[in-house]
Amino acid sequence: MAACLTQNPANFLSDGKKIVGVALNYMDVVKARNVPVPKEPLVFLKPTSSYLREGQPIIIPKVFSKVAYEVELGVVIGKPCKNVSKARAMDYVAGYCLALDLTAQCHLGPARASGHPWTLGKGFDTSTPVSEFIPIKEVKDPHNLSLWLTVNGVEKQKGCTADLVFNVPDIISYVSQYMTLEPNDLILTGTPDGADAFKAGDVIECGLGDLATLKFDVCSE
Amino acid sequence: MAACLTQNPANFLSDGKKIVGVALNYMDVVKARNVPVPKEPLVFLKPTSSYLREGQPIIIPKVFSKVAYEVELGVVIGKPCKNVSKARAMDYVAGYCLALDLTAQCHLGPARASGHPWTLGKGFDTSTPVSEFIPIKEVKDPHNLSLWLTVNGVEKQKGCTADLVFNVPDIISYVSQYMTLEPNDLILTGTPDGADAFKAGDVIECGLGDLATLKFDVCSE
Ligand SMILES: [Mg+2]
Ligand SMILES: [Mg+2]
Ligand SMILES: [Mg+2]
Repeated sequence: MAACLTQNPANFLSDGKKIVGVALNYMDVVKARNVPVPKEPLVFLKPTSSYLREGQPIIIPKVFSKVAYEVELGVVIGKPCKNVSKARAMDYVAGYCLALDLTAQCHLGPARASGHPWTLGKGFDTSTPVSEFIPIKEVKDPHNLSLWLTVNGVEKQKGCTADLVFNVPDIISYVSQYMTLEPNDLILTGTPDGADAFKAGDVIECGLGDLATLKFDVCSE
Repeated sequence: MAACLTQNPANFLSDGKKIVGVALNYMDVVKARNVPVPKEPLVFLKPTSSYLREGQPIIIPKVFSKVAYEVELGVVIGKPCKNVSKARAMDYVAGYCLALDLTAQCHLGPARASGHPWTLGKGFDTSTPVSEFIPIKEVKDPHNLSLWLTVNGVEKQKGCTADLVFNVPDIISYVSQYMTLEPNDLILTGTPDGADAFKAGDVIECGLGDLATLKFDVCSE
């Protein structure tokens, strides 16, 4: 049995090998938490086993007591990318997606306090719901897109990618100093203010400009 | 252009999608550092873009000032694995490899102190040199294998997998509570005492029982 990896970014969910997230990357979050503006992007990894397509439920693992939504702009890489300048970084972008970066705050909080890795709190199965691929030609300006999220119809997050601390080329250039970004890798650019816990039985809906919407049921493991 | 993912674990380097590492997992390290024995495995991720084959040099990124060797037993997963018991965990192992988990201590130290992710200090290009795949049938007991590492011919690490805090089934069972382990995923089980910095111009050699040896030149970016 062999599965064929394509260079077609429409298949990023099945063919990508890494997901690179950025934390604390919206100015409204920095202000709300009254913390210093990060000097460099706070970069973490999620495994591709965490991807979820619309139509399947978000499953809260039984090992977790508090899991939060984070609505984000995803960036899909189109070409191998190492040590690229900010000026050239957008040449390596194939397109975008709408994504959720679900986060087990019950695990991440204690992990951070202990200096431990973020992996389990960020990397659990179904923690990265994503939309279909959006080709770059359909997006006039990735830094002027609205992001919104509702839980059971009630608005919980409302932001704009204009408010990013590190924008798309900043992130690509920075990460590519450390690791090669490969075709179909996904970058999660961070979430605006309002991320909070959800529970089994909730319905989460979110949107990215007029480009994509997503709707997920939530159940417990 | 399409690359075909196989389920053949001999191709784990090209076909695997994640690398799961465990930190502070040898009793000799726990004793040397005089820290409490971890209650649960300390799990982190490395991207598959960090893999390195023998014959290519380890490259110390220009953004780092202190990178350390860590010689480790690698475990290659053979079948999808979720919520598996310790008693059944070995059924999901295809085999093993000898591996290095190169670590930028200059980045990881400050990251840990700030509660930041471990990703950049663990995930840089060439940070995961690995041997060929070793089928499980060639390994009588994975928990009685010697591990050694020399720099320029001088012994730096010498341990035995009998000294693991969490053994192979412990790790697989634990991680599979959070994320699905997939065919060709690699688990890095931790390093015995002696991990320390190396520099451009060094030659690193290491071995795993009578199963594998590796030799790498080191250069700077
Ligand atoms: Mg991490
Ligand atoms: Mg996030
Ligand atoms: Mg290690």
